[in-house]
Parts: sequence; structure tokens; C-alpha cells
Amino acid sequence: MAGVPNIKACVFDVFGTVVDWRNSIARQAAELARVKGVQLDPVAFADAWRARYQPQMETVRSGKRAWTILDVLHRESLVALLPEFGLEGKLSDAEIDEFNRAWHRLDPWPDVVAGLSRLKKKFIIGPQSNGNIAIMVNMAKRAGLPWDVILGSEVVGYYKPMPQAYTVACRILGLPPEQVMMVAAHNNDLAAAQKQGLSTGFVPRPTEKGPNQKTDLTADGKWDIVARDFVDMADQLGA
Amino acid sequence: MAGVPNIKACVFDVFGTVVDWRNSIARQAAELARVKGVQLDPVAFADAWRARYQPQMETVRSGKRAWTILDVLHRESLVALLPEFGLEGKLSDAEIDEFNRAWHRLDPWPDVVAGLSRLKKKFIIGPQSNGNIAIMVNMAKRAGLPWDVILGSEVVGYYKPMPQAYTVACRILGLPPEQVMMVAAHNNDLAAAQKQGLSTGFVPRPTEKGPNQKTDLTADGKWDIVARDFVDMADQLGA
Repeated sequence: MAGVPNIKACVFDVFGTVVDWRNSIARQAAELARVKGVQLDPVAFADAWRARYQPQMETVRSGKRAWTILDVLHRESLVALLPEFGLEGKLSDAEIDEFNRAWHRLDPWPDVVAGLSRLKKKFIIGPQSNGNIAIMVNMAKRAGLPWDVILGSEVVGYYKPMPQAYTVACRILGLPPEQVMMVAAHNNDLAAAQKQGLSTGFVPRPTEKGPNQKTDLTADGKWDIVARDFVDMADQLGA
Repeated sequence: MAGVPNIKACVFDVFGTVVDWRNSIARQAAELARVKGVQLDPVAFADAWRARYQPQMETVRSGKRAWTILDVLHRESLVALLPEFGLEGKLSDAEIDEFNRAWHRLDPWPDVVAGLSRLKKKFIIGPQSNGNIAIMVNMAKRAGLPWDVILGSEVVGYYKPMPQAYTVACRILGLPPEQVMMVAAHNNDLAAAQKQGLSTGFVPRPTEKGPNQKTDLTADGKWDIVARDFVDMADQLGA
């Protein structure tokens, strides 16, 4: 494969790239609404929860707030959302905790398990997600994601796209950055990784944000690999 | 199973409990001696390297030294040992790096892969070792250890048997300590874990330190499970 570097590890963005967070959260929001006898738009609920994701992490990235894991940020966002969706006062603290773990129960895109299982034979594979370890482990157990290692924000101590999120992951693996391929459906994640010397692989997820998605429909940078899905990526990497 | 707690995760000591470090290091020391044309006792070499393990970590535990991963401590010990074994000046820096990764190439005891594969079906399984992540990942890839997550010193930021080595691991998994079982061939590791509320499982490795091993031949505490090996542990835990 001309131009494909000598890769030893593939690290993955997870929300959007590995799993379909939108439909998975909507599925669970619909079930919650049913149980609680509340009318709500489950997809709007998923989008509203996710809309608070970047601003919440930004409070940590900017240094305004001490290191805080995503489970905690998600829970704060959830509590803030409840009134908007007619759920204020309808959930106990334990029920809020339980529903907050909806992010531990996301479904992978259909190609993911087959593709990862092949990539695992040739490379070290692991998430390099902004999700904390418990999210990643519980998700993997439920969905059958065959990770070799859980990397990500809680292990490296930085949220993507901060440079250290990528450089510390490589240092931990004991590998030079070019031997680590960042795989994502988001061009900005790959641009940040490439700037730190990592190899890059793009897989489009054109319905991650719904049927009218406008961004990340195609590869916007010079990525080392552009693949249709994880199975195609395994093909292209000879795994 | 009377008395067996409601366990969700099993975390494992690795050096001695999962892998036979002594014969694995001796195997590689013998090969190094052959290549370099040096006479040395490979088992004595393994024992001498391992003898520096606890004193090196103690410099970090005591606060005398900033956090330092085991690969670095191992390398310092290796360099210090070379003269004693006729290897001074015989290895380049790159060769020292390569031989230092002997700890990434340790062989599991014969029951380990079968036992872990069964335990993985019912529980989250991961190393809670003093080894850093790269040691654990490379070892697992080579030996086929089916970990769900790599925990351990580098993830929690403390060397066992410091209390935080156990409590932070449970917090990261999002589990109360009693739902996490520490599995080890070393009674002192289990005693430290039990003190923090973890469940405990003992598996004897009576030849870890050689044919004349005197310690850890039997369970010296009130551990929740005492098993012959990892397969027996899977049997006892219904996995």
C-alpha cells in the first residue's frame, strides 16, 4: 500500500465513529418517556444532550474547572435538560444515575465488530475517546467491541482535540506517533492528530447527526487512509 | 456459592499470578548470553533483576521520586546489573531498550488463557498490576490474554500495595469495592486490597520464585475465593 505508514496501533474516536450515539440515546429516551408517561421527542432529546457535550468539556479544557470525567459532565447536562422535556421531578437520583449510563449502552454501526475483529489481529486497537474508562468498558462488554486497551481522556488526562490527548496516548503505548493511526469520522479530530504526527484514517458516518447532516460527509484533509467503513479499512490495511 | 459476593469485575496481579516471570526472563537472558558470547546463570539473572523491583518502586511510593513507570525502573535496574553478569559495554542503548522489553514477553501459566476466557464471559477482567500499560498490552497481544481493560499503576497513579492503587481502580470502573475481586498469588496484595473493601481471590503459584519457594504457598488470610488455578476460579465463580 503506497503511502500507508508502518502502523502498530489503531486508536479510535468512539461517539459517532464506532457507535451511533443519536439513535441509541433516542431509543433509551423513548423507553424512559414510556415508563414515566411523558410525551417527548426522543431524537430531539438526544440532540439536546449531545449539544451540551463540547461546551461542558470546554470548561475543563480551558482550565476553568479541574479535571472532570465525562460521566459527571453528562449527568450535569442531563439534570439541566430535564425541565425542557417535561421530566423535572420525575426521576430519583438513582434513576438519573441509571439513565446517565445510557452513554454506556450505545450501539455500534453494523460494520464495527467485524472490522475491529480483523484489525485486532494485526494491530493494537483501543478507543482514544473523550469518554471515561467505565463508559468504554461497559459499552464494549455490551456491544462486543474487542479492544486491547482502553485509552482516552481519563487515561491521558486531556480532552481531545488538545495536543496532549494524542501525544500522551502514543507515549503510553511506547510508540512513535506515525506508528499510531487515529481513526475518526470527524475531520477536526484527524487534523489535530495529524498535527502531532499521528497517522490518520477517515471513515464517514454520514447519518451520525441525522438525515440532514452537513459536516464530515467526506474527507476534508490529506488522511493516510479513507475507508468506506471498518471492514474496508481492514482490507486497505491488509488486516 | 455461599459467601461469594456479587462480583462485577475481576482485577489481577500479573507478575507471578498471570505470568511466570522467572522462567520467561531466564529464557531471554539465556538467549542474550548466547548471542553475546557471555557465560551467565540465566535464572540468577532473572532473580537479580526482580530483586531490584520492590526497592525501585519504593522510591516512588515514598515520594522520594516523582511518578515513574515500571519500564523506566526496569531499565535502570538492568543497566545496574550488567557488570555483575559480564555484560558491561556489550549492549548498545537500543539493545538495552530491546532487552528491557523482556518484561513485555512473559509467558502465562498454562491455565491462564482458558481461565480468563471463561471469566471474561461473566465479569469485566483486567490487570491491576504495577506494570505500565505498554508492558500489559504487548504481553497480552503476544500471550493471548483477553483483557477488557488495562488498569494498573499507570492508570491509577499509584503502586500497589498503596491503598489508592485499589480504591482508584474501583472508582474508575464505577463499582463499589466489594463488587471488584482482586486476584493474586500473593497474600500481601490481597490483604491490602481487602483492607480497602475489595473482594479477594487467591491462586497459589508455588514455583513462581523457584523450586525452593517458601512464601505464598497457601492462603494466609480469609479470602473470598481460594482456587487451584484460573480454571478452578472460573468454576467456583460460575463463569
